[in-house]
Amino acid sequence: MARKMNVALLGYQFMGKAHSNAFRQVNRFYPDLGIEPVMKVLVGRNKDAVTSAAAEFGWEDVETNWRRAIARDDIDIVDICTPGKLHAPMAIAALKAGKHIICEKPLTNNLKEARDVLRAARGSRKKTLTAFNYRRVPAVALAKQMIAEERIGKIYHWRAVYLQDWIMDPNFPLVWRLKKSEAGSGPHGDLNAHITDLAMHLVGDIDSVVGMTEAFIKERPIPEAIDASLGASGGRSKRKGKVTVEDACLFMARFKNGALGSFEATRFAKGRRNHNRFEINGSKGSIVFNLEKMNELQYFSDDDPAHAQGFREIIVGENGAHPYLDAWWPPGHIIGWEHTFTHEIKDFLEAIEKNRKVSPDFHEGAKVQAVLEAVMDSAKTKRWTKVAKV
Amino acid sequence: MARKMNVALLGYQFMGKAHSNAFRQVNRFYPDLGIEPVMKVLVGRNKDAVTSAAAEFGWEDVETNWRRAIARDDIDIVDICTPGKLHAPMAIAALKAGKHIICEKPLTNNLKEARDVLRAARGSRKKTLTAFNYRRVPAVALAKQMIAEERIGKIYHWRAVYLQDWIMDPNFPLVWRLKKSEAGSGPHGDLNAHITDLAMHLVGDIDSVVGMTEAFIKERPIPEAIDASLGASGGRSKRKGKVTVEDACLFMARFKNGALGSFEATRFAKGRRNHNRFEINGSKGSIVFNLEKMNELQYFSDDDPAHAQGFREIIVGENGAHPYLDAWWPPGHIIGWEHTFTHEIKDFLEAIEKNRKVSPDFHEGAKVQAVLEAVMDSAKTKRWTKVAKV
Amino acid sequence: MARKMNVALLGYQFMGKAHSNAFRQVNRFYPDLGIEPVMKVLVGRNKDAVTSAAAEFGWEDVETNWRRAIARDDIDIVDICTPGKLHAPMAIAALKAGKHIICEKPLTNNLKEARDVLRAARGSRKKTLTAFNYRRVPAVALAKQMIAEERIGKIYHWRAVYLQDWIMDPNFPLVWRLKKSEAGSGPHGDLNAHITDLAMHLVGDIDSVVGMTEAFIKERPIPEAIDASLGASGGRSKRKGKVTVEDACLFMARFKNGALGSFEATRFAKGRRNHNRFEINGSKGSIVFNLEKMNELQYFSDDDPAHAQGFREIIVGENGAHPYLDAWWPPGHIIGWEHTFTHEIKDFLEAIEKNRKVSPDFHEGAKVQAVLEAVMDSAKTKRWTKVAKV
Amino acid sequence: MARKMNVALLGYQFMGKAHSNAFRQVNRFYPDLGIEPVMKVLVGRNKDAVTSAAAEFGWEDVETNWRRAIARDDIDIVDICTPGKLHAPMAIAALKAGKHIICEKPLTNNLKEARDVLRAARGSRKKTLTAFNYRRVPAVALAKQMIAEERIGKIYHWRAVYLQDWIMDPNFPLVWRLKKSEAGSGPHGDLNAHITDLAMHLVGDIDSVVGMTEAFIKERPIPEAIDASLGASGGRSKRKGKVTVEDACLFMARFKNGALGSFEATRFAKGRRNHNRFEINGSKGSIVFNLEKMNELQYFSDDDPAHAQGFREIIVGENGAHPYLDAWWPPGHIIGWEHTFTHEIKDFLEAIEKNRKVSPDFHEGAKVQAVLEAVMDSAKTKRWTKVAKV
Repeated sequence: MARKMNVALLGYQFMGKAHSNAFRQVNRFYPDLGIEPVMKVLVGRNKDAVTSAAAEFGWEDVETNWRRAIARDDIDIVDICTPGKLHAPMAIAALKAGKHIICEKPLTNNLKEARDVLRAARGSRKKTLTAFNYRRVPAVALAKQMIAEERIGKIYHWRAVYLQDWIMDPNFPLVWRLKKSEAGSGPHGDLNAHITDLAMHLVGDIDSVVGMTEAFIKERPIPEAIDASLGASGGRSKRKGKVTVEDACLFMARFKNGALGSFEATRFAKGRRNHNRFEINGSKGSIVFNLEKMNELQYFSDDDPAHAQGFREIIVGENGAHPYLDAWWPPGHIIGWEHTFTHEIKDFLEAIEKNRKVSPDFHEGAKVQAVLEAVMDSAKTKRWTKVAKV
Repeated sequence: MARKMNVALLGYQFMGKAHSNAFRQVNRFYPDLGIEPVMKVLVGRNKDAVTSAAAEFGWEDVETNWRRAIARDDIDIVDICTPGKLHAPMAIAALKAGKHIICEKPLTNNLKEARDVLRAARGSRKKTLTAFNYRRVPAVALAKQMIAEERIGKIYHWRAVYLQDWIMDPNFPLVWRLKKSEAGSGPHGDLNAHITDLAMHLVGDIDSVVGMTEAFIKERPIPEAIDASLGASGGRSKRKGKVTVEDACLFMARFKNGALGSFEATRFAKGRRNHNRFEINGSKGSIVFNLEKMNELQYFSDDDPAHAQGFREIIVGENGAHPYLDAWWPPGHIIGWEHTFTHEIKDFLEAIEKNRKVSPDFHEGAKVQAVLEAVMDSAKTKRWTKVAKV
Repeated sequence: MARKMNVALLGYQFMGKAHSNAFRQVNRFYPDLGIEPVMKVLVGRNKDAVTSAAAEFGWEDVETNWRRAIARDDIDIVDICTPGKLHAPMAIAALKAGKHIICEKPLTNNLKEARDVLRAARGSRKKTLTAFNYRRVPAVALAKQMIAEERIGKIYHWRAVYLQDWIMDPNFPLVWRLKKSEAGSGPHGDLNAHITDLAMHLVGDIDSVVGMTEAFIKERPIPEAIDASLGASGGRSKRKGKVTVEDACLFMARFKNGALGSFEATRFAKGRRNHNRFEINGSKGSIVFNLEKMNELQYFSDDDPAHAQGFREIIVGENGAHPYLDAWWPPGHIIGWEHTFTHEIKDFLEAIEKNRKVSPDFHEGAKVQAVLEAVMDSAKTKRWTKVAKV
Repeated sequence: MARKMNVALLGYQFMGKAHSNAFRQVNRFYPDLGIEPVMKVLVGRNKDAVTSAAAEFGWEDVETNWRRAIARDDIDIVDICTPGKLHAPMAIAALKAGKHIICEKPLTNNLKEARDVLRAARGSRKKTLTAFNYRRVPAVALAKQMIAEERIGKIYHWRAVYLQDWIMDPNFPLVWRLKKSEAGSGPHGDLNAHITDLAMHLVGDIDSVVGMTEAFIKERPIPEAIDASLGASGGRSKRKGKVTVEDACLFMARFKNGALGSFEATRFAKGRRNHNRFEINGSKGSIVFNLEKMNELQYFSDDDPAHAQGFREIIVGENGAHPYLDAWWPPGHIIGWEHTFTHEIKDFLEAIEKNRKVSPDFHEGAKVQAVLEAVMDSAKTKRWTKVAKV
């Protein structure tokens, strides 16, 4: 009989919807978890909006004050899906209240806040998870497995881009993601955070970096009512405001194990809707992944006979062969983006049930923050910069 | 306030799981349907197994006698997910009981049964749906839309294959899908049914056909306990039994509008897990789809400037631009195979609510059956055969 | 020291240009052939045109009467690149004159003519080659090698299309290729001939077939001056003439070894310029080739570990590993369509020098003709038809 | 009547073979150039080897002293295909002798030498060409055309890699390309040179850069007889020598027009034989090219209707529509790597005949050198570096 654990979800936009779906689905596809999450309370400042969202997503109750929600005795798990500037105070409060915590990425808006969170986490016996969901794409988990199996050999190169194009129109409004005070940074924290986590997961720790940033559009129309959601613009006034985050950020890196890395995040790559692509080259093989084709993994093996070598396109959809897939459908019946969250929640609950570590925890999330911050420093000093120890 | 309608689901294997998921999810992503399906009763012969499945999938109640379940007054919708030989009796019983009905494809195991079903359906004011779910892949719906927009022009060619490889091992056991008495046919009814429906949906009615079939492996091990599920083999005895369905079936067709068609279904295409691919060539453009890359649609337009023509790969994942996608995630955050069922249930419920036709209904399902049967006749007579009128 | 052999080339259009290039290049890249072809005489009816072509392509001399050219004592090799209706008389004359012969495909316009050619060839000790150049694409030669290495296992399926779109405009003129009296047939003899040869080369002999043909555009403008070249339309009159060949021809086949085949040739596949694609499925693997990406071969191997299986894209451009490539450039520096002719001429000259068989000879060319003719018969009788023995 | 111009080719390895082929072929496919290059003299230090090569490639005469060859009065054109360290002295001598000059890339081994060459070029009325042949890939020329047509709009991003894998085996010997004294640098001068030229050709001048280099394998076996050719290893002694060039070099750049660029060249990308790929993102569209698929260009246009947008794969093989292709074959009959040299020689001869500029001339070649040198400086200082004016 599964043990019930109550969840409070903070935030109900795009990410809140995705997490809600995962909580709802997880026991249906992983019936033997031992834990059944109960969708207890959805938290948002606007009573009407959060009430409507709770009905749509399937939450029992709502709450407009996040501190009150976190303090509730009946809550076991706090899930933070708000803009970045709220991550640190919420995570710290939840840690103090003794909750298990999932926090959307990036962990915080800067390294100082991340350290604050880590300090609060010291001594806690609860589980923490920084929700870098792309680790739980089956193809990425397969990549990790193949590296562990030594199919790639010693890694020489990591090459990743995360390209989008949703703000290229100069009339796209000044939403919260374009304001440093809310979002901390632009595509750097939003997208480079993802590929930095993947790089550290698949290749290893990063020693030093050199970065550059650019804002192509310096001013944008101010939405009449600024909504704290991605792309929600409401009506547009004619007034323009200053864009305070970058539109693009590139960096190069040296890994501690000697590999070389390149990273690029931009919102100005026309035609690239959600193009999170990485390539790893090792002494024995290579691996390529692209989120837009997330059910596929490219793999080159030097072990193949010379005349039969080539990048093979693995369709990562095989129950019985591929990570996470046993829960789903027969071979070739592919899954989607939302399933990464179901996998994430499943692993998180499993870690609680079996009292084992789940990755990336807050410490790993803070290490990503250290890399991101070194890049930003480097963009200012125009020099190579060491990544701070966390 | 959404009206509740109670559902009885017959069958709880692979398809039952997929339909259950759709019933559970549909209101979460389409909150304004006006109907809320209630997962009332799951039906199966084996009490223990169906009880366990009901708990896993989220059904309130179970029933081991399908006639009793259909007869229940509190049931509004009957959903048939059993092997083909049960489709006709179940559908007829449900029609007589005045239920709305969803029936998995193919509608029946042969044309005679399909006619029996149609006869029972005459006069019914309830909705019927033959569950050819691939019409509800967003990319396929987009193909339909583009054809309606006259982007392809007059259609000359339809070219489709549905390739799998799950029974190539000669030791794969004699499951129900390999027995004519249960399944009616092999990949012809299983896979050609799908691409025939798509062909009629996208190109038009078929006038005549010529077909061929082949069984490459004539005998297979008999499973000790034959389980009525796909691929469930249990232990294997050393005794072999006769395979009574084909392993592959190809046919060519003339459409009534003059287009030429080719179709192929096989379970002997090594490496093709679920390769349902079609190409349409018209006077102004072409379209290509492949289920293994179901979030993509290839499109060639003759309207492009001569030096800039090429097949473009549309990533069909845009809310605001692509069919069904508004309900889901931001651009480029792709969905999976299971979502086609959510779309199907959504359209079905919408048709009930607004009292409008839903396609493909049982009449369209029977027309597919007429084509399939003409192919089988042709394979015997070795001649071109006219498709019977339904 | 290489032995010189004199060549007479009959025809100077598109194919003549391609063969000329091959004769000019072959010794540069295969310096150790032992034979040096001398580009002696180019043959065409129109003195001015053939003279100009000879200068452009590098032929020493011209001749307007093909019988006279063939009769010349100093000619060792006759190469026939004229429209199909001239193949038989030219080949027979050349055989009688004791020449080595290369004849463009298809060998003849019908099976009767092919038999006539074979009769004339009986007893000849000279080499004959039917110029199905696609056997000499390195990727196709690699496919052949991989099949010989038993990497694919027992073959179950052959699936080929040859799609073009150059006559889709109804105002495209009535060129020689659209007249049965000149070309024998439409895409059937032009394109199905190619894929039929490849099928027999890679899979084996064909037992029986069923086919269909269609002419979508029945009448076309008559060019004022009909030029015997592909696509050369000159000015167009307003008069229309009847198209006497098909626009598309599909057929299905049973191979003698039990494999099933499908074939399609059309000139009405918008966006497909030269899309000659085949797929072979065997018990152990699969192979896919597409002429538009002729430096690539797709290969699936069941020997790969279950979680690492996928179609691999072999870039067939490796000297040291891939057929024919040693002569050319470093890995990944790809070659083009024209090189297939250089390989063909190279193999032909090598066969002369070493007095060994070269494939496909006239007998193999005639066997292709027998299949093509059975298809055409079947399209009339609307039944499966046995392929005649040659 | 075409004017004859005599050519001296310095070097007869891989590049010499490719240039020879181009000289031999150019008039065959571009018969109206007005100039006929005569393959007069092939130059190499080793009499036997150069004599053999001359016979194979089709040169009239040989010469072992390059200064003597350049000094010959009957030579009109000097073509330099030797290792980089000889480029400067040879080019300067040829300029002084008043010859037209083609020089393989990179123009020189360093910027100082490039300036020396430019100084010698001052006042010369002869044509100079730095042989960055990839500008003459039809797909690249098409990219240039599409940018000029303003199909891409304002360019924001350039993203290029040139990946190879031919020296990953630690036992691969210490050939001349791995010695700084001969080659100047490793993949930086060999591969980054190419993509830097393409970047400047397609995007514009580069303002500043930051780079990094790495040598993964520090020592390699010394070949017993060091042959001045790519990959020619002869026997291998057990002695090892120091690798004095980098194995990989990455850099980021700011273009003068505000675009951001990333560049990477490596010989350690397993499975990437000759993977020269670039992507350009502009305000209205994007373009992607990959040399391994050199007959294709990917193009995304924001002008397409929202639901029909996608990267289209243009097969750049259309006479009548695509650059350079009129000379070759019908649509879809693709060309290869060697043809880029034929195009290059054709443009060079045309520039001589019509007395117009040909790009990239030595000045443009020197500008590439300035970028390369700034990258190397930056890799040492670990800071962003301004590109020197040339």
